Amino acid sequence: MSDGKAGAKVDEARLWRRHMDMAELGKTPKGGVRRLALTDLDADARGKLMAWGAERGFKSFIDPIGNFFVRREGTDPSLAPVMSGSHTDTQPSGGRFDGIYGVLAALEALEAIDDAGIGTRRALEAVVWTCEEGGARFPMGTMGSSVFAGTVKLADALELADFDGVTVAEAVERTRARVPAAVDRPLGMKVASFVEAHIEQGPELEARGKTIGVVTAIQGARRFLVEVLGEDGHAGTVTRARRRDAFVAATDITKALYRHFTDPDDVVRFTVGRFTVEPNAPAVIPGRVVFSIDFRHPDEAVLTRLGDAVEGVCQANRGPCEVKAVQTARSQPVPFSGLLPDLIQSAADRLGLSSMPILSGAGHDSIYLAKICPTAMIFVPCEKGISHNEIENATPYDLASGARVLAEVLVELANR
Amino acid sequence: MSDGKAGAKVDEARLWRRHMDMAELGKTPKGGVRRLALTDLDADARGKLMAWGAERGFKSFIDPIGNFFVRREGTDPSLAPVMSGSHTDTQPSGGRFDGIYGVLAALEALEAIDDAGIGTRRALEAVVWTCEEGGARFPMGTMGSSVFAGTVKLADALELADFDGVTVAEAVERTRARVPAAVDRPLGMKVASFVEAHIEQGPELEARGKTIGVVTAIQGARRFLVEVLGEDGHAGTVTRARRRDAFVAATDITKALYRHFTDPDDVVRFTVGRFTVEPNAPAVIPGRVVFSIDFRHPDEAVLTRLGDAVEGVCQANRGPCEVKAVQTARSQPVPFSGLLPDLIQSAADRLGLSSMPILSGAGHDSIYLAKICPTAMIFVPCEKGISHNEIENATPYDLASGARVLAEVLVELANR
Repeated sequence: MSDGKAGAKVDEARLWRRHMDMAELGKTPKGGVRRLALTDLDADARGKLMAWGAERGFKSFIDPIGNFFVRREGTDPSLAPVMSGSHTDTQPSGGRFDGIYGVLAALEALEAIDDAGIGTRRALEAVVWTCEEGGARFPMGTMGSSVFAGTVKLADALELADFDGVTVAEAVERTRARVPAAVDRPLGMKVASFVEAHIEQGPELEARGKTIGVVTAIQGARRFLVEVLGEDGHAGTVTRARRRDAFVAATDITKALYRHFTDPDDVVRFTVGRFTVEPNAPAVIPGRVVFSIDFRHPDEAVLTRLGDAVEGVCQANRGPCEVKAVQTARSQPVPFSGLLPDLIQSAADRLGLSSMPILSGAGHDSIYLAKICPTAMIFVPCEKGISHNEIENATPYDLASGARVLAEVLVELANR
Repeated sequence: MSDGKAGAKVDEARLWRRHMDMAELGKTPKGGVRRLALTDLDADARGKLMAWGAERGFKSFIDPIGNFFVRREGTDPSLAPVMSGSHTDTQPSGGRFDGIYGVLAALEALEAIDDAGIGTRRALEAVVWTCEEGGARFPMGTMGSSVFAGTVKLADALELADFDGVTVAEAVERTRARVPAAVDRPLGMKVASFVEAHIEQGPELEARGKTIGVVTAIQGARRFLVEVLGEDGHAGTVTRARRRDAFVAATDITKALYRHFTDPDDVVRFTVGRFTVEPNAPAVIPGRVVFSIDFRHPDEAVLTRLGDAVEGVCQANRGPCEVKAVQTARSQPVPFSGLLPDLIQSAADRLGLSSMPILSGAGHDSIYLAKICPTAMIFVPCEKGISHNEIENATPYDLASGARVLAEVLVELANR
């Protein structure tokens, strides 16, 4: 068991300063960050990491999809390394903490372990996974981690293009050229374990006054698109009895769906986020409504049971209209259990940090790392749960606390 | 009482042919009509009427707002005339019957009375009211009739401009120049009574298999705009307990409103036609919804009682969100009762035409004529109740039937 020395060496001021440094790369007038994947700004974030690592003799590596690794060597270089990290790219109107926190917390942990004079059997690597934010520049998210894990073929990712027709291959090449001191590394290497620190992107930790979220799973998700067809009509002339009002039918359906998806434990996440009425004119009875369903749950069986009932609930509440429900996406839950969450929990306890088990509602690179090695995540609070937004915020204390837990956990994992 | 001779002289084929002639003025590829108010096409519609009237020696007049009158002289020219008519302008994607039917039915009635050799004490005039369709070209509807009735000042109407900056004054002048043979007539003349024939623009007559609708009132209307404010949130992370979902609150409100506005007799017309969600993204809990309420009823007391409860129903169902309801428009009901509807009813009975009392859900020029003289309306069926649409349709038989009833009623009114 680690004795808290690594955690104690985490430097809150240094970690905060590096966040502010990184936030200069793509800084927006409103105080947010716009640093799209594999742009020069994103390459320069890798460059900063490389420079900070080099001050301690940490070597940097880059792989064929642009994933970037800052390595603190272990006493047995032949063993698979323990990795930690996240991403440096942002949404078009992103914040200063989403992604970059996981990368900087990992580097901070390596430096803290270094400052504590702790040697580890396995090497430790702080990682940048390429292009986590899908749709911001390229039409694929968690690109680097899924290629690294072998879920997506390298060639398929490289040929994707952004809105200007620039391919991932071209953008990786350009990124590569901006960090010439990094060493090329092939895909397919072994990883002993992976831990990702991240802001929660939800309000639970802050609301409950907890510093550390021990992530128990990334939820699975199902998305549906529902189309309700009625008949346009004159609002002043058509009697209620003769109406086929798509708005009335659609809201009867959403009401029944919200009832169907209400669970006593408040674990189900059910959202109608998009709801579009046609023709959407005050004096016209709506003839068509299209709405989206976003349904998430950590339990595959619940995803199946509740989700499979969507069609039936729609049909039972369509009134005189027609309705069609189509599933547009489905992802399985990724549970984190066993050793790693336990290590995170006990490190938090040891450091005297309040903690709670928490679900990840959003997707993360950890989904793909979990396919190839033991994986876990550490959440820290973000202000009001706001993320993917320029006003995204977090406190230096909370960020440092997560890095302390991470440092402790990495020492333990690297000595196994 | 008229003896049916005038009605019998209505010529179904002639009336249909004139509709098809008029439909050439602004004919659209889909078989509809685009004849915006006070354009050359609209002026030429007046020209056609003038020419058809001139074949029988009927004189045409035009007033300072472009209203157009084709007059069959009475035996006592000093008496106020009986008028009938509607409008020749259309919506941008309008049909072949809305408005123009009322004008052509009036001319047909004058011709039928002429063919029957019937003299009347009062003159009969077939009228075109300028610019009934608000928003299609100029930002005011029922312009000609409201100026004629003195509700709107002539100068205020004349200075309105269309999207290209052309004023009503300029457009009236241009219209005037295209019908040089018409005689100028000032505003402010007396009218003995007014009857407007119109397609129903709703499905009731067709659905009940009736030919003649005896209009009992034009409904009053109240419009509201309701804004529901919640808080944007991540669909995957925010628990149900912490959500302030503007979509859920707004649909709870609309559901309660629909309940509140449900009457056993199905006279209330209540419609949420516009409903706009923000940010309207599948993975974001909606933070804001704005929706419209269109509420119509023939009884002013009911308009007041039900409509005044909107705010309370909104507040009682807002859940954790905020809500604001604002009334944006209100118009009083215009009841048609007494002699004129009775005359229409008995003329229909005498001619063996099926009929029913019916409300007008839409507004018409008759609203303003009712302010200055006894007024009534005759409805005939239109296919599937569809109007303000290029596929608007009606049968030659139904159109002629309405004109027969109109001819009978005009004879009676003109001899009073």
